[in-house]
Amino acid sequence: MRADARKNHDHLLAVAGAAIAEQGVDVSMRDIARRADVGLATLLRHFPTREALLDALLRTNFDELTARAGELETSSSPEDALTLWLRDCVAYAREYRGVVALMTAALGDPDSALHASCVSMRAAGTHLLARAQAAGTARTDIDGTDLFALVAALAWLGDQPPLAPRADHLFEVVASAILI
Amino acid sequence: MRADARKNHDHLLAVAGAAIAEQGVDVSMRDIARRADVGLATLLRHFPTREALLDALLRTNFDELTARAGELETSSSPEDALTLWLRDCVAYAREYRGVVALMTAALGDPDSALHASCVSMRAAGTHLLARAQAAGTARTDIDGTDLFALVAALAWLGDQPPLAPRADHLFEVVASAILI
Repeated sequence: MRADARKNHDHLLAVAGAAIAEQGVDVSMRDIARRADVGLATLLRHFPTREALLDALLRTNFDELTARAGELETSSSPEDALTLWLRDCVAYAREYRGVVALMTAALGDPDSALHASCVSMRAAGTHLLARAQAAGTARTDIDGTDLFALVAALAWLGDQPPLAPRADHLFEVVASAILI
Repeated sequence: MRADARKNHDHLLAVAGAAIAEQGVDVSMRDIARRADVGLATLLRHFPTREALLDALLRTNFDELTARAGELETSSSPEDALTLWLRDCVAYAREYRGVVALMTAALGDPDSALHASCVSMRAAGTHLLARAQAAGTARTDIDGTDLFALVAALAWLGDQPPLAPRADHLFEVVASAILI
């Protein structure tokens, strides 16, 4: 992709991310084009469908979380790296309303465009978990899928208005069950 | 209600429960009438709307869970009573697909027909929790709303196909964070 095309592409993704954070994953392409101050045709040239746009956006974010796991591994203790990464994952999944259901569905569907990124993210979590387990600071009877599930459940809680105020506290409760 | 009317009412509720367990909370009134082998008009005489039927069904189940908490209090140790009750709550919420979102919404909406039953159920959980806390077997920094949230999150997990196989194990993980 040429530099200016890449810039436009990234701008549209950033605008779409903000729109989804406010309106949830059901936001229309027309709304996103309006926010980005481009015509619908321009948006569709970059992302032919809403699904393609969502895939690109989520893939970017999943890949960032995977990269973040790698950074934490070199900068933090096994226990801190795992805790900080789980917190980042929950915060990300809470930012985009409705993304949790897409993530869990993609994990189970090898045909999904997001499947590979989900699997990579799970592998990054498995790696941080194994490191903490080896250091004796994480329970040994859970695996990367369990981590993925707990992150998804905590993010889901944060999306339920009557329960959302307790979400940060419940992150601590669940983290205390993972770390020993 | 006369005895035969009560019997018909309870039969329709039981059939509706089975239909929702199979098809989720979006099952149609027509489908429920067909399964119960009655005309749609008969079903509508008992429950004028799908929402009224759902309310009656869930209220019955929530009230059973509240009563179950009372039984466990006299029959089991504080720790066992709390664990068994949480397990029953999650199992119930998993049985009816889609019920978790209805439960959490009702908890936050005083105008919901289910609100009072949700509040009673939370109070029953708070009571079992306080008993275990007093016995020194449950952590003291959580409350009845936290229990409700954790039950809801575990039930939600059990409803996500790629994560459902881990739901029972993750119940144990989360229970180990509540009980000390």
